[in-house]
Amino acid sequence: MAERKIQDLFGKPIEVVNLGLQGFIESMKEQNVPVVDVDWRPPKEGIRHLRVTKTGISIDEANDRVVEIIKKARPVLVGMGMAIDTIPGYKPNLILHAGPPITWDRMCGPTRGAVMGALIYEGLAKDEKEAEQLAASGKIEFAPCHHYHTVGPMAGVVSAHMPVFIIENKAFGNKAYCTMNEGLGKVLRFGGMGPDVYAKLHWMTDVLYPTLQRALATLPDGVDIKALIAQALHMGDECHNRNRAATSLFLRAIAPALARTNTDNETLAKVIEFIDKNDHFFLNLSMPAGKAALEPAEGIEGSSIMTTMARNGTDFGIKISAFPDKWFTAPAPMVEGLYFPGFSEADANPDIGDSTITETAGYGGVAMAAAPAIVKFVGGTPDMAIESTLEAYEITHSEHEGFTIPVLNFRGTPLGFDVRKIMETGIMPKINTGIAHKDPGVGGIGAGILRAPEKVFKDAFEEFSKLC
Amino acid sequence: MAERKIQDLFGKPIEVVNLGLQGFIESMKEQNVPVVDVDWRPPKEGIRHLRVTKTGISIDEANDRVVEIIKKARPVLVGMGMAIDTIPGYKPNLILHAGPPITWDRMCGPTRGAVMGALIYEGLAKDEKEAEQLAASGKIEFAPCHHYHTVGPMAGVVSAHMPVFIIENKAFGNKAYCTMNEGLGKVLRFGGMGPDVYAKLHWMTDVLYPTLQRALATLPDGVDIKALIAQALHMGDECHNRNRAATSLFLRAIAPALARTNTDNETLAKVIEFIDKNDHFFLNLSMPAGKAALEPAEGIEGSSIMTTMARNGTDFGIKISAFPDKWFTAPAPMVEGLYFPGFSEADANPDIGDSTITETAGYGGVAMAAAPAIVKFVGGTPDMAIESTLEAYEITHSEHEGFTIPVLNFRGTPLGFDVRKIMETGIMPKINTGIAHKDPGVGGIGAGILRAPEKVFKDAFEEFSKLC
Repeated sequence: MAERKIQDLFGKPIEVVNLGLQGFIESMKEQNVPVVDVDWRPPKEGIRHLRVTKTGISIDEANDRVVEIIKKARPVLVGMGMAIDTIPGYKPNLILHAGPPITWDRMCGPTRGAVMGALIYEGLAKDEKEAEQLAASGKIEFAPCHHYHTVGPMAGVVSAHMPVFIIENKAFGNKAYCTMNEGLGKVLRFGGMGPDVYAKLHWMTDVLYPTLQRALATLPDGVDIKALIAQALHMGDECHNRNRAATSLFLRAIAPALARTNTDNETLAKVIEFIDKNDHFFLNLSMPAGKAALEPAEGIEGSSIMTTMARNGTDFGIKISAFPDKWFTAPAPMVEGLYFPGFSEADANPDIGDSTITETAGYGGVAMAAAPAIVKFVGGTPDMAIESTLEAYEITHSEHEGFTIPVLNFRGTPLGFDVRKIMETGIMPKINTGIAHKDPGVGGIGAGILRAPEKVFKDAFEEFSKLC
Repeated sequence: MAERKIQDLFGKPIEVVNLGLQGFIESMKEQNVPVVDVDWRPPKEGIRHLRVTKTGISIDEANDRVVEIIKKARPVLVGMGMAIDTIPGYKPNLILHAGPPITWDRMCGPTRGAVMGALIYEGLAKDEKEAEQLAASGKIEFAPCHHYHTVGPMAGVVSAHMPVFIIENKAFGNKAYCTMNEGLGKVLRFGGMGPDVYAKLHWMTDVLYPTLQRALATLPDGVDIKALIAQALHMGDECHNRNRAATSLFLRAIAPALARTNTDNETLAKVIEFIDKNDHFFLNLSMPAGKAALEPAEGIEGSSIMTTMARNGTDFGIKISAFPDKWFTAPAPMVEGLYFPGFSEADANPDIGDSTITETAGYGGVAMAAAPAIVKFVGGTPDMAIESTLEAYEITHSEHEGFTIPVLNFRGTPLGFDVRKIMETGIMPKINTGIAHKDPGVGGIGAGILRAPEKVFKDAFEEFSKLC
C-alpha cells in the first residue's frame, strides 16, 4: 500500500487546510500545494493557563470542593410563611426582583408591571398610576431576590405579604425561598396586571397558602425536593420549563397530608385543581432547591465555577464562587422561541428571571436530554435537546450523580459551569426559558432557548485571571 | 488499485461465506477457495406470498381497517362495579384467569394460588386445603378473562365479588373490565396467599372501591385513559411495566373528585396513599383500555393482525383478527429478568398474564424507547429499550399517531403485529413483564423481558395461509 498516493484513500484530490501557523502555510505554498488558510489561534484564555492561584490554591481542587458541596446538598421543603415574617432582613417597603441589581428607571416592562402589580396587591397603591408614582418615589427599596436567599421566576417580584416556600438544605442548614407559581399567561411574574391577576394572587394567599401550610406542618420530614427532581428527570422533565412529572410527584407527596388536614372539601378540591392545572407549579420548588444547594458553594477561594446566573430583563448577570459578592453583567439577550397565539418576537422582552438557577445547579437546560418532549414548548427538536446536554459536558466541571439521564445510560447531569472552559471552548451555556411581553401588564407570551452572553464570562474570567 | 489483492482491503485473508445456493458453493470448492456454508433459505413463508385471500380480500387493506379501528378507539374509565353485577354473563361460581383456556389440573402454581386465594376471599373456602378441593371439584367454572371482555395482570384471577373498572370505548360503545391493582410482591395476582393478601383485598373492596366509585360517579365525562397513556409516553412510561407517570396523572385526574366526595379525611388520605405507594396502579387501567381498543378490531375478514396475546403461566396464546374465536398456543417461555432480593430464576414461573394486551394495542414493550428508565426494573440497557421499539416497527403494520415517542422525534408507536411479517423476518414480538414465583402462595419475585414463542405465529400463519 505504501506506493499508493494519499488521494487514493479519499478517492479525490485533497487540499491542505492550514490552522493559524503562518510558517507552515508558507512552506506549503512554496511546494505549490493548494492551501485553505483559516485564521485560527489556540485559545489565549482558558483552562490551560490557569491552574493555580498566586496564593497556591489548585483551581481544579477548589472546583472539586464546589461541586461536592452542590452534590451533597439535600434541599427539603420544610414549610411556608409570609415573606415579611420569613425571609431574613425583610422590610415592609422592600420589593425583590429577579436578576442582578437594577434601579426603577432601568427596569424592563415586565419587571415594572410586576412591581406595580405587587404594590396594588399589597394595598400600597390603588391603581397603576399610583403604583408607578410610588415605585419611582424612592420610598420603595428594590433588591435582587438573590441577595435575600430567594429566587423568583421571570420578573421574580416578591413583596412583603406574599407567601413563600421555605427550602432547607438539610446537609448545610441554609434556607432558600420562593413564592408560589401562578401559572402561565397573564400573571404577575410575567409582568401581568389587572383585577384577575390580583384576585388570583389573593386566592393563593388566602386559600392555597394556608391549605398547603397546614398540610406541610404535619410532615415532620418535609418534602424531599431533591428526590422529586431526581425522579422527574426519569419522567421527561428537566425541572426548568418542563415540570409536569415533578408537579405530579409533588401532588402525590402532599396529597395525603392535604386530605388529613382538610377542613372543607370544596376548598381542598380547588387547591388540588389549581396545582393540577399548572404543570409549572413545581418550578417554584425546583428553583429554591437549586438556590439552597448553591449558596454553600459560594465564596470558595480559587474556584472558577459559576454559582449564580440570573436576569432582570435588562441585564444578564452571573457570579462565580471565588467572588460571591460580585456580579458580572451584560445586556440581556433576546430569546428564540415559540409564541402563544397572537404574539411574536416583536412583542418579546429580553431574557428575564432567576430560573437559570436550575442550569447552574445541574438540571434545567443542561438536562434537556432527559426531557425531549420539552421541544413542543420551547422549540427545537429532540436531537437538539440531547445535543444540549452533551454540549454542556464540555464546559462543566463534573457530573451530578444524584441527577441521572436514562437515555444517556444514566449518566449524571452536567454540573458546575467553569468559566475557564467556557472561555476556552467558546461554548456559552444554553438556557431554556419563558418569554414575557415587553410591555408592563401583558404577561407571558411564549417560551424558548438562548445562550448566555459571552461578555459576562469574559469579564468574570478576566477578573479571575488576576488571582493567578 | 485493480492489481491489489482483495485481501489488502481488509488486511487479512478473507473467507467466502455461502448462503444457501449449492451451485455456487460447488464452484468455489473447485477453485480451492475456503467456504463457510450456511444453511440459509429465502423465507418460504411471509408477506410476499400472501397478498389476497381466496375470496378476493386484500390482506393489506384488511389490516389497514384493523389498525384504523384500534387508532380510533377512545377508551374512557366510566365507572366501577362488582364483577358479578357488571361483567356480562358473570356467574357466582365463575373464576376468570389470564391467558388462553386451561383446566385446573394444568394450571401453574401462581394461577392455582390466585384461584385458591380468590375462593377464600369469596368466603367459599375457609382455608387453602378446602379451596384446593373446591377448585378441583368441578363446581367452579374457569374461563379466560378475554372471553368476558376482561383482562387480568399475571394470574389475572377475577371472582364474583371483586370490584372492576369499567372502560368504555367511546368510539365504538364496547366495554372492557379489569380489577384494581394490588401492588407488587405477595399479592393475589402473582399467586400470593395468606391473611395479609385477603385483608388487603377486602380493604380494596370495602374502602378503596366505594371511595373511587363515588368520585367517578361525579365525573360525567369519566377519565380519558387514552389521553393519560399518550401523556405518560412523554413522561418515561410505556404503560406496561412502567406506570409511574400514568399513575400520577390518574391521581391528578381523580383527586379533585375524591376531595369533593370525601366523607372521612383519614379514609381519603389512605386511599391516596394506597395509589401513591403503587406505581403500577395504572396498569389495571392501561390493560382494559387496550382490551377495549382491540375488541372492535377482532373478526375483520382477511386480516393477519394479532388482536390478542395472553399467557396463563402454562400456555402462551394469541389470536389474530381473521379468527376471533381461535387461540393458537404454545408452552409459555421463561422470562429473563431482574429478581427481588432472595429470589432467582430457579424460583420463576413461566411467562404469565394478560398484560401483553398493551404490546398488542401499541404501547408496553413496543414503546420501550419512551421509557428508558424501565431497564432498572426489567433489566437491560437504555439502548436495548430504544432498539426494542425500532425492531417492533419491522413486524407491525402501522404506527399509532395517538401514541408518540419524543426521543424518536415523536414517531408513532409500532401498532399491529402482522403474523406475515413476523414469519418473514423471524423477529418475535418482545414483551416486558412481571415474574411470579412458580409455587402457589408466594407472589411476585421480579420483572424481565422475553420474546413470544415462534410456534404460535407459525400455527396462526399456517391457518391464515389456508385463506389464500
